[in-house]
Order: sequence, then C-alpha cells, then structure tokens
Amino acid sequence: MTDQDVVETSLRVRYAETDAMGVVYHTNYIIWFEVGRGEYLREKGSEYREFEGKGFYLPVIEVDARFLAAARYDDVVVVRTSLQQFRSRSITLYYEVVNKDTGLLLATGHTRHLCTDQEGRVQRFPQQMIDVFKRGEEASA
Amino acid sequence: MTDQDVVETSLRVRYAETDAMGVVYHTNYIIWFEVGRGEYLREKGSEYREFEGKGFYLPVIEVDARFLAAARYDDVVVVRTSLQQFRSRSITLYYEVVNKDTGLLLATGHTRHLCTDQEGRVQRFPQQMIDVFKRGEEASA
Amino acid sequence: MTDQDVVETSLRVRYAETDAMGVVYHTNYIIWFEVGRGEYLREKGSEYREFEGKGFYLPVIEVDARFLAAARYDDVVVVRTSLQQFRSRSITLYYEVVNKDTGLLLATGHTRHLCTDQEGRVQRFPQQMIDVFKRGEEASA
Amino acid sequence: MTDQDVVETSLRVRYAETDAMGVVYHTNYIIWFEVGRGEYLREKGSEYREFEGKGFYLPVIEVDARFLAAARYDDVVVVRTSLQQFRSRSITLYYEVVNKDTGLLLATGHTRHLCTDQEGRVQRFPQQMIDVFKRGEEASA
Repeated sequence: MTDQDVVETSLRVRYAETDAMGVVYHTNYIIWFEVGRGEYLREKGSEYREFEGKGFYLPVIEVDARFLAAARYDDVVVVRTSLQQFRSRSITLYYEVVNKDTGLLLATGHTRHLCTDQEGRVQRFPQQMIDVFKRGEEASA
Repeated sequence: MTDQDVVETSLRVRYAETDAMGVVYHTNYIIWFEVGRGEYLREKGSEYREFEGKGFYLPVIEVDARFLAAARYDDVVVVRTSLQQFRSRSITLYYEVVNKDTGLLLATGHTRHLCTDQEGRVQRFPQQMIDVFKRGEEASA
Repeated sequence: MTDQDVVETSLRVRYAETDAMGVVYHTNYIIWFEVGRGEYLREKGSEYREFEGKGFYLPVIEVDARFLAAARYDDVVVVRTSLQQFRSRSITLYYEVVNKDTGLLLATGHTRHLCTDQEGRVQRFPQQMIDVFKRGEEASA
Repeated sequence: MTDQDVVETSLRVRYAETDAMGVVYHTNYIIWFEVGRGEYLREKGSEYREFEGKGFYLPVIEVDARFLAAARYDDVVVVRTSLQQFRSRSITLYYEVVNKDTGLLLATGHTRHLCTDQEGRVQRFPQQMIDVFKRGEEASA
C-alpha cells in the first residue's frame, strides 16, 4: 500500500476518553477508527450519512486492535485510514493511530463491514460506493 | 415525598466510566440517571421500549446535577429515582446516587422530558403513561 | 457579556455519540462542554493538563443543560464557551452549542468547578489561573 | 474448555449504548468484556482494584471481536468470560455475549493483557494472581 490511499484525520484527546490509569481507555481508539472511516469516505467522494440516506448501512462485523503506546489527555492524535480489502458485499479498513507531536505509533487495527439494508439483510454495494472504494484501490495500487 | 415513590436500582462502576482523576467522569452519573429512569418506569408498570414501540418518545430537554462525592471503579452505587412533577406533556424526575456500602450521597439531579412523537412534535401523554405517573404521584402523596 | 470573551471550537458528531432516537445522546453535549472548556483555557493562555501537572484539579461540581434542538451524525457543531463567574476557589463557565451550517442553537448549559488538590481538598486558584480568568473577565467587561 | 471455568454476568442495555442504527454501538460490547473480566477475577478470588492497589495493572494490549447479532435497548445480555491463556507476564481472556431471553449469541472476542507496574513496565504476575488464574486453568482442564 502506498501512502496515496491513506486518509489522515486529527483529533484531540478528551478528558472523557481517559480512565483511572491516566491514559485513554482502549475502546476509544476504536471510536477514533470510526472517525477515520468517516473521513476516508468523505475524502473519496462519499459521505456515510448519504449512504444511510439511501437505505444502506455498514455495520461493523469484526474489529481487532493492538495497543502499543498510550495516548493521554489533550494529546493530538492522527488517525490514518486506508482500504485493506473490497468485495461485493463487504469491506475491510486498516487504521493506524499516531501521536501527532512525536510520531509515535499508538494503535493499529482493522474493521470489517457488511453492506446491509435497514433490516440488516446483506446487499451488494451500490455503484456509488463501488466507485469510492475503487478510488481507494487505485490509489493503493 | 415519601420513600414509597422511590425506585432503587444498583450498578457497579465500570473502568470505562472512570477518568484520569481516578474517579467517575461526571457525565456517567447522568447516564446512571437514565438507568434509574428505566427501572422507575418498569417498576410502575411500563417499559420505555414499549412506549417507543407505540411511537412515543421522552427526549431529555433539561438536566441538572450536583456532584458531592466521587464514585470509584468497582464501587456499587444505588440510583434512587422518583417523580418530581407530572404534566400533560412533560415530566420531571429526581435522582440521588449513593454509595451502596457507605450510604454516602454522591450526586443528585433532575431530568425534564417532553412527550413527543417520532418526528419530535410534542404530544399529550397516552393514557398508559398517565396511569404510570399517577401511580408515582399517589405513592409520593 | 460581549463576544470577545467567547472561545469557539468546532467538532464533528461521531456515530458513537448518537442513540436509537437517531440523534445525539444528551450527555454527549456535556462532554462537548468539556472540549469547549479545554479550548477556552488554551486560548486564554493556559492548558488544563499543565494545571494538573502542578497538582491542581477542576472537578465539575454542578452542571445544567437545556437541549433545544438535535444534533445528528456528521453534523459540525460549534461550542461557544465563556466565563460566567470567577471566585477565589471556583469558576462557572457558560456554553452554547450551535449547528455550524444552520446557526441553530442546539444546547446551552453551565458547569461549575472547584479548584482542588489531588486529594480533592479545595484550594485557592494559583496566580497563573487567576490571570487566565481575569483575561476572560476583562474581555467580557 | 469446560463450562466450569466460565464466569457469567448479566447487564441490561442502556439507551446511551445504542446508536442511530437502533442497536448497540459496537465498542460497547468490548466495554461489556471489561465488566465480564471484573466478575471473572472476583469469582476466582481476586478483585482488579485490589490488584491495582498493590501497584499492578492489566492494560489491554490486543482486542478482537466479532459481532453476530444486535443487542437493543433494554435487552438483558449475559457476558460469559473464561481464561484462554495464562503466561508469566500476560493473560488472554475469551468472551461470549448472549441475549439472556433468547440465548442468541451476539458477540465473541478476546482481550490480551500485560501485567505492568504503574509506569507501564512489564512485570511477572504476583503470586496472588497466579493462584487466581491457576484456578481458572484447573476449572477448564
């Protein structure tokens, strides 16, 4: 994967996201993956809320994450999101979270999503989303 | 208000609910108010999800809370919920959160709710909910 | 209060912040107040984490909020934070949350904070914070 | 693994845990894993907060989860927690989340944890924790 496919988005750690260990509670990194995913779609020419507006959903069916170093309150972190795999009814995205100041890699992970309708039935991606993901694939070719 | 109207529910503090001060982050007490509210309705003979199933909603339009002492990870707290005011289109509930072991009062607060339909238009409460809240009023008379 | 004292910060609504009513769950606005508060301090020349680094804390002792209109997934909202009251051992801040695109006022609220040490004992504000808040007061004079 | 090692804990889904798809937002299942883990330790004769009280921590270094079916507001779910692997400096736990009424399997996953001191340096487990986990291993033998 080249860097062309990677979409970056920054966010500042909230106090609400920390825990009694003094660092960010682990599930918040996975919420940041969601933030990165939204920016990825926007950058590639779509918006997830438009996608939902047309009756399609992208529920998360699998997630994994590795936590390598801690983020702390008020740190600015960068979420780097890229397309890992694109099939007719599912996609897998890859994420890296780095500390913006130090460049230190804090967490990595994947999410896998099905394309469904509102009732949760699996669907083929509509053409607009295929175009979005193809743009991601070409960028990473 | 007598104690007859008060509905109690217990919960154990999650690590996810703590913050870098080593105590529970303040908005989580307000989420516990929601837990208490659900139990209040259930105890009085209704369930909020049934209410939604009939097309009614109880969005929070006002909240206030005072934080008196800290809850910590793994503490068991009791949420004591009671009806403060019941009108044709709105209700106000009152909450106390106490540490179950020590009895120490940790937080108090109110939430005020409108009765609306799915589009957010204000509605009169349906008869079933009027009965629920009247039971609360009688208990506290 | 003139607008000079108001510190604005923008954020985009996360899917994690929505609930089954299709809109933002109410306590998340209060977390956004925290985001606004952090930016207020930064803009006025301090940073909350430095403040903690010196052994001082600003626990929330009271909060109130009114919810006027709903924020939805992917909306950009602006948190407008200003100083409401500054005393030797406590401060009160005021917040407005508006939809960035429409200008619609979504929520308002206050938080009141004590200045404490790490053990939760009330302290007078250190001089650095007094300077920060005086800057806020002068701006709003 | 026999069922002897499995520690079960129940919880009721909060409105705060739902999202605009009308179901539980995926990271909340992973917070429920934390609830299950706390009960696992308690049942086996330890408590995580005591462990921290002695200066040891169990940060999550890896997590994975599969989401098979949705939990909804007010559902009661059971978290079934068991020991997957126990080494001198790390443990892996396995979780299943089922709907209590229907028995439907909603989610599965693992968390891997290091034993560290307060500064995050990896440590061997203290004897008390070794005893706890051995009890888990024996139960599952």
